[in-house]
Amino acid sequence: MSVTPELDPLFNPKSVALVGASKSIGKYGSTTLFSMITGGYKGKIYPVNPKGGKIQGLTVYPELSEISDDIDLVVICIPSEKVLPVIEESVDVGVKTGVIITSGFGEVDERGKEIEREMAKTAREGGMRFIGPNCMGMASAVPSLYVMMNMMIPRHGNVSVVSQSGTLGTLLMMAASGQGVGFNKFVSSGNEADLHMEDIIEYYAQDPETKAIFAFIEGVREGRRFIEVSKETTKRKPFVVLKAGATEAGMKAASSHTGALAGSNVMYDTVFTQSGITRARDSRDSIDLIKAFSLLNIPKGKRVGILTAGGGAGVLAADACGREGLEVPDLPEESIEELNEFLPPFWSHGNPIDITASGANASSGMDLSVMTRPLETLLRCDDIDSVICMTPSLSTMVEWMPKTMRKVLKSMPLANIEEGMTRKFIELKEKYDKPIVIMGFPGQGSSNTPLEDGGIPIYESPEQAAHVLSSLIKYGEYRESFAKFASNGLF
Amino acid sequence: MSVTPELDPLFNPKSVALVGASKSIGKYGSTTLFSMITGGYKGKIYPVNPKGGKIQGLTVYPELSEISDDIDLVVICIPSEKVLPVIEESVDVGVKTGVIITSGFGEVDERGKEIEREMAKTAREGGMRFIGPNCMGMASAVPSLYVMMNMMIPRHGNVSVVSQSGTLGTLLMMAASGQGVGFNKFVSSGNEADLHMEDIIEYYAQDPETKAIFAFIEGVREGRRFIEVSKETTKRKPFVVLKAGATEAGMKAASSHTGALAGSNVMYDTVFTQSGITRARDSRDSIDLIKAFSLLNIPKGKRVGILTAGGGAGVLAADACGREGLEVPDLPEESIEELNEFLPPFWSHGNPIDITASGANASSGMDLSVMTRPLETLLRCDDIDSVICMTPSLSTMVEWMPKTMRKVLKSMPLANIEEGMTRKFIELKEKYDKPIVIMGFPGQGSSNTPLEDGGIPIYESPEQAAHVLSSLIKYGEYRESFAKFASNGLF
Repeated sequence: MSVTPELDPLFNPKSVALVGASKSIGKYGSTTLFSMITGGYKGKIYPVNPKGGKIQGLTVYPELSEISDDIDLVVICIPSEKVLPVIEESVDVGVKTGVIITSGFGEVDERGKEIEREMAKTAREGGMRFIGPNCMGMASAVPSLYVMMNMMIPRHGNVSVVSQSGTLGTLLMMAASGQGVGFNKFVSSGNEADLHMEDIIEYYAQDPETKAIFAFIEGVREGRRFIEVSKETTKRKPFVVLKAGATEAGMKAASSHTGALAGSNVMYDTVFTQSGITRARDSRDSIDLIKAFSLLNIPKGKRVGILTAGGGAGVLAADACGREGLEVPDLPEESIEELNEFLPPFWSHGNPIDITASGANASSGMDLSVMTRPLETLLRCDDIDSVICMTPSLSTMVEWMPKTMRKVLKSMPLANIEEGMTRKFIELKEKYDKPIVIMGFPGQGSSNTPLEDGGIPIYESPEQAAHVLSSLIKYGEYRESFAKFASNGLF
Repeated sequence: MSVTPELDPLFNPKSVALVGASKSIGKYGSTTLFSMITGGYKGKIYPVNPKGGKIQGLTVYPELSEISDDIDLVVICIPSEKVLPVIEESVDVGVKTGVIITSGFGEVDERGKEIEREMAKTAREGGMRFIGPNCMGMASAVPSLYVMMNMMIPRHGNVSVVSQSGTLGTLLMMAASGQGVGFNKFVSSGNEADLHMEDIIEYYAQDPETKAIFAFIEGVREGRRFIEVSKETTKRKPFVVLKAGATEAGMKAASSHTGALAGSNVMYDTVFTQSGITRARDSRDSIDLIKAFSLLNIPKGKRVGILTAGGGAGVLAADACGREGLEVPDLPEESIEELNEFLPPFWSHGNPIDITASGANASSGMDLSVMTRPLETLLRCDDIDSVICMTPSLSTMVEWMPKTMRKVLKSMPLANIEEGMTRKFIELKEKYDKPIVIMGFPGQGSSNTPLEDGGIPIYESPEQAAHVLSSLIKYGEYRESFAKFASNGLF
């Protein structure tokens, strides 16, 4: 049975009670409340604390039972020994879901594990489900609900995240937020006493607001179910996983962290491949991949056109395509002829299309077409499925020039040129419906740009640009072959 | 015979003539001159142009021969058909070195190759050496000489670079400049008609200003000499190479770019390993590696201590250490006892030392020691050779919080805390003389910080932090075994 309807009140609650609400700035009962208020939650917030009074303008209730409203979600930030009684109380007043931030349970000792089992039993028998304990919170963009004990509020978007490490999950989301990725739902699953990571993934798989799913996994508690849920998930949408604890040293560290069994790396690789999961190589790659799945559609094939102003980057991109199993086909005669018409005579006459630094320099004559016309030739070409293109961002480069030069260049209408270039790039992407990926340079992936808002992601290197295209294609192939097998009755 | 003394006038010229100096802002004769002036060159600049007059306040000479001073370096930015006569003229007036920016030679056709051979012959017979043609220029920090046709002026430091792609070389240097790496010398080697990449590397190997060398290579023209020069180089200092053209697609692109033969990837891997070269995995990795070799000393062994505030990052770091062949040893009883004295009771009681998010939160109580005391315990421990540590940068995190929260936190003395933390980190690094590497998060590697100025590099992920430590150690092992073999007379 799917748990999905049970989780609706968690992600779309009409009212939230926060037990352990506090005024002291260092306490989680204070930071979590703060994140709910500043996050702009659209429902009702009921702070609970025996002391009563007011916090940040809200009336504080001495106990849950004194709130006359129905409570969809209870957030618990009180010392560990008081948590079980509050769950009992929650069940009594009909609370439907909970987030238990308090730590000091199963991650500490056997006694803690016992209490966790008791908590889960009490909740389930009372028709309540909960996240945690020992977690950093959760978020849901539609009701603008941010229950974040570290007060970090990610950018709004279409990626949903479940993380077995709260700190790492939020840090990655925040870093990604700074790089054009937006998030829809987030769960820090903590000790998973009741709701497991698998339940959350299952919910995301069916959630129309979620286009792509990301999980940070230290260890899986329900192996068989994980595979089933993942297979169901990847039939519908991409699922990116960063798996920690892949080596002995990592496993040891993981087991002391959340107590989950890490398992062998090879085993996970097999499981992930069979389930259509896209495995991130490292934390940086996680962000690059979710950005790709969030912004791009899957290319129709492996044939990449490369557009560069400077040969080195073109060589690195072609190289990376080769390594990643992509093709960099020769261009048909008609494309070459077309390019000859408007490119400088010393262009590379092939794929990669290198307009050369001199060609790019012509654009300091403020002529956008030096990049946009060859881009259109590539997009129009039937032998090309996607394009890797050098960044059209002039303003970043300006920052690197000597001060006096910056002054000269800043007096030129660079902003207009970039705006024009961006508009044209987005227009072309939409016209030809083929993915365009920008190969920037390290340090350049780190700002929200109109280009990314328009569905053209920027990557820090030619290598990462090729890697994300290849990952999209591999996922597409998995999904297609799965569908084919299924239609033949083989599943 | 070493070419080294011949190159002194190139890197430390007392006077530079620029043939093709121009007032038109789009021309290389203008941008290159501009970069020399704004770069603050300490010697004399003689612009040359038949039109005469003044450019940017400097007297323009109609021909080289009218300059009464000795010319150490001539920079040539004129149409290709006029280059050979200017080389003849340069030789006549006793110019010692040249940088030929003009393109349109060997990269275009056979006739161009012929002219290149003629140019090289004329120069050598006249006692002159040159870089190019078809290059972006060169730079040398000591005389503050920036002959850069794209006007990009990197940060001053101890890394020297030779690049077979001018655009890529400068882009990487500029990106690295934004991330705490400084540069001493740069050569865009272009078509290498006279001076080859190998000559430049040989010069850098003997250059006391250069601590580490980086090369971007598309293809090697002198295989045997490359190996010899590299072996001599890596006996003295680290040599990082990014090799492009590793796949068929890349080779094809490379050959159309500079005409150099790319060669097979496996062959290059073998050559690099035998020569003690550190091969960068991609362009991002290049920057991470040169930053490490620029800022860090080689750790005495493989045993890494990990310090984190949040388990997930610790697990990823431990994992990455395992993959990279590093050890994450258990801590001796005395270290554990020491840590028990001041860490919160729920710390991880092992390596990685996880002070947990709660522990870190205590530091919002403005107590620096929560990070600096366990760091000192690790550094003092005889079983630990280097430390990977979570970022102590609070201000970056503040940027991610909701506006109202940012206001609250910005009113706190965060800057003071960070300053104090930074000072203490640097003090500890110097006291114990063990490398400390910060594991930040993606997007965080991109600013020059006092921490990096103090010799503590920041990386964007736990994985890269482990990777650079491992690369340092591998290079150290190579150099040590080489020295051992040599002292036994085996070389």
